[in-house]
Amino acid sequence: MRHSKRGDVDPFIVMDVMEAARKAEDQGRHIIHMEVGQPGTGAPEVAKAKLVADMQDPLGYTVGLGLPALRARIARHYADWYGVDLDPARVVVTSGASGAFLLAFSALFDNGARVGMGTPCYPSYRQILKAVGLTPVDIPTTYAQRFQPLPSDVADHDLAGLLVASPANPTGTMLDRGDLKALSDACAAGDAALISDEIYHGIDYDIKPVTALEVTDDVYVINSFSKYFSMTGWRVGWMIIPDDHVRLVERLAQNMFICAPHAAQRLALHAMDCTDELEANKAVYAANRGLMIAGLKAAGFDRFAPPDGAFYVYVDVSDHTHDALAFSAEILEKAGVAVTPGLDFDAARGQHWLRFSYARGTADIVEGLDRLARFMKGRGA
Amino acid sequence: MRHSKRGDVDPFIVMDVMEAARKAEDQGRHIIHMEVGQPGTGAPEVAKAKLVADMQDPLGYTVGLGLPALRARIARHYADWYGVDLDPARVVVTSGASGAFLLAFSALFDNGARVGMGTPCYPSYRQILKAVGLTPVDIPTTYAQRFQPLPSDVADHDLAGLLVASPANPTGTMLDRGDLKALSDACAAGDAALISDEIYHGIDYDIKPVTALEVTDDVYVINSFSKYFSMTGWRVGWMIIPDDHVRLVERLAQNMFICAPHAAQRLALHAMDCTDELEANKAVYAANRGLMIAGLKAAGFDRFAPPDGAFYVYVDVSDHTHDALAFSAEILEKAGVAVTPGLDFDAARGQHWLRFSYARGTADIVEGLDRLARFMKGRGA
Repeated sequence: MRHSKRGDVDPFIVMDVMEAARKAEDQGRHIIHMEVGQPGTGAPEVAKAKLVADMQDPLGYTVGLGLPALRARIARHYADWYGVDLDPARVVVTSGASGAFLLAFSALFDNGARVGMGTPCYPSYRQILKAVGLTPVDIPTTYAQRFQPLPSDVADHDLAGLLVASPANPTGTMLDRGDLKALSDACAAGDAALISDEIYHGIDYDIKPVTALEVTDDVYVINSFSKYFSMTGWRVGWMIIPDDHVRLVERLAQNMFICAPHAAQRLALHAMDCTDELEANKAVYAANRGLMIAGLKAAGFDRFAPPDGAFYVYVDVSDHTHDALAFSAEILEKAGVAVTPGLDFDAARGQHWLRFSYARGTADIVEGLDRLARFMKGRGA
Repeated sequence: MRHSKRGDVDPFIVMDVMEAARKAEDQGRHIIHMEVGQPGTGAPEVAKAKLVADMQDPLGYTVGLGLPALRARIARHYADWYGVDLDPARVVVTSGASGAFLLAFSALFDNGARVGMGTPCYPSYRQILKAVGLTPVDIPTTYAQRFQPLPSDVADHDLAGLLVASPANPTGTMLDRGDLKALSDACAAGDAALISDEIYHGIDYDIKPVTALEVTDDVYVINSFSKYFSMTGWRVGWMIIPDDHVRLVERLAQNMFICAPHAAQRLALHAMDCTDELEANKAVYAANRGLMIAGLKAAGFDRFAPPDGAFYVYVDVSDHTHDALAFSAEILEKAGVAVTPGLDFDAARGQHWLRFSYARGTADIVEGLDRLARFMKGRGA
């Protein structure tokens, strides 16, 4: 049967790692999972209990833009966290950040439009762009620029749109207010749409993240309940859009999604008030991060981007290998630790990088770091 | 800020009706809702109780194609309902039928491809196609052909794909095995992809619906848990695809959606065994349908397509009006019944048609039909 060219997107290389890890576990081996990109915790308990009560209602379709109470609560979140006064009418509740990207790309770009992103980056950006008929443009970034794109990239790459992430996956680096303002100004000057992926906000440590809404209203801000709010599998996120795009995006959302999952919207509303549980999760990430920074360095993995936020450390392993995929297979085989080769994030340079995740429990992190240290010592690093 | 041409899709005219109905209710009027397209019932109680137990698990991401147990259960459903032996590997669990359409359109068609559908039809088909950069092609259908497309339409309209629905929304008409075989053969001959929307299967009365899988494996079959399984707001559906498309669609699903909502997948698995509750819902639709066919005729709404399935009657009102939107406003104002003008389903001819839904409780149907009869009598019909 016929199939499209645009739908023929790249496989995830991390899936091969996860499959190899699963097989090792099936054979009775104990594997430490530093390849995963999701919290090990579920939704807050208090929120789940409230949802169980809500389940007496039929929970049919909501309106396309989402439950009004949730949109209002998200607007208040911007006041609470950033001091930004936000009209709830600009909030769109989406089927995860994934649904937000699909909506944003349809609302902003016509067929073939060039949309840029700094590499390394979340691999699905480019695959979704390709799948919906757009042209993803990789912009190689450097350590000196903290692996973030530069304002000049907008004109240099002739972009119709620029996608930025702060804190970023896989590097964990952040954009400060000045960076965001300069990127926003460059987009405005080039008639390019700015899309700011802020899904790791709240998973930050020494530095407070800046939302793009602090510097401009001319932006699509994308966020999710999957990370800080620990609601990974529920598939609900949100998007803040300019005033004059609301009717456009409402019509798209009604047609493309009908609505985000109703139960997940109710749960999200409850979860936003579960600060104690969520801050306890965050304290685990903070402890893990301290262990990771010290432990990876001690093991010989000492060249990495500043992990300002999220729960990843992206390590330059070019001193140890020119084949990150083979190296990750060796680490799995010999150390019993699953890690992600950089290839999914950066096709051109990922052979020299590994991503280590610290999203799981601290005991696993301690054990994983110990295994890595012994492995590297045995390898003669 | 810039926006796209493709994202500028048509508004739903039914939304104006729903808004007018809401305002009337705010003013204290009692409105009967014959405009809605969703069951009034929630998910089966037994299934919800099982989900509450499942919520002790973290319910993180599932694999992209969906929970293996649910895929296997859906495959068994094809044996149980149709006698079709289906490999579970061909089952893709999706974020509602909406998510299935997005996946199918990306997997099958490149930018600008012509995808046809018989009109009248579900309006989101054409809006989703436009939003993702494809070319929706309206194929006007006739009463004589039961408002379904003909095999000759594939070549006549130079189609890369054909979308059919049986039972159809808004007409309720069905395609029999011969119809589906002829359409499938015409698609194969024209190298066009056949997409069969079967979301109203299970909501059928005198005639058993045929799945396209009974006549070909070269098809994308799309279904949903929102109608028969009464899980509207949970946003989970499924798709059956050809063997050699599974890896392609798996990669697309991982990137575009990560996965369908985990809790909804668990609930769906439980709901598939709740036959007693689901058949009780269906008995209500069957009773409503008998009342509607008789009551609409008695009121003077006597020209409609054969409502073989789903929960709609699509009525030719050209004897009464040349402006279905004004007529639906008059019915709301004078009779207190909300109905849908045909314009969303058929931009060219919808001014002469109304859709009446009987998805809600029987008492409402009785009251609504009584109001409609009195309204039409007062109007001198």
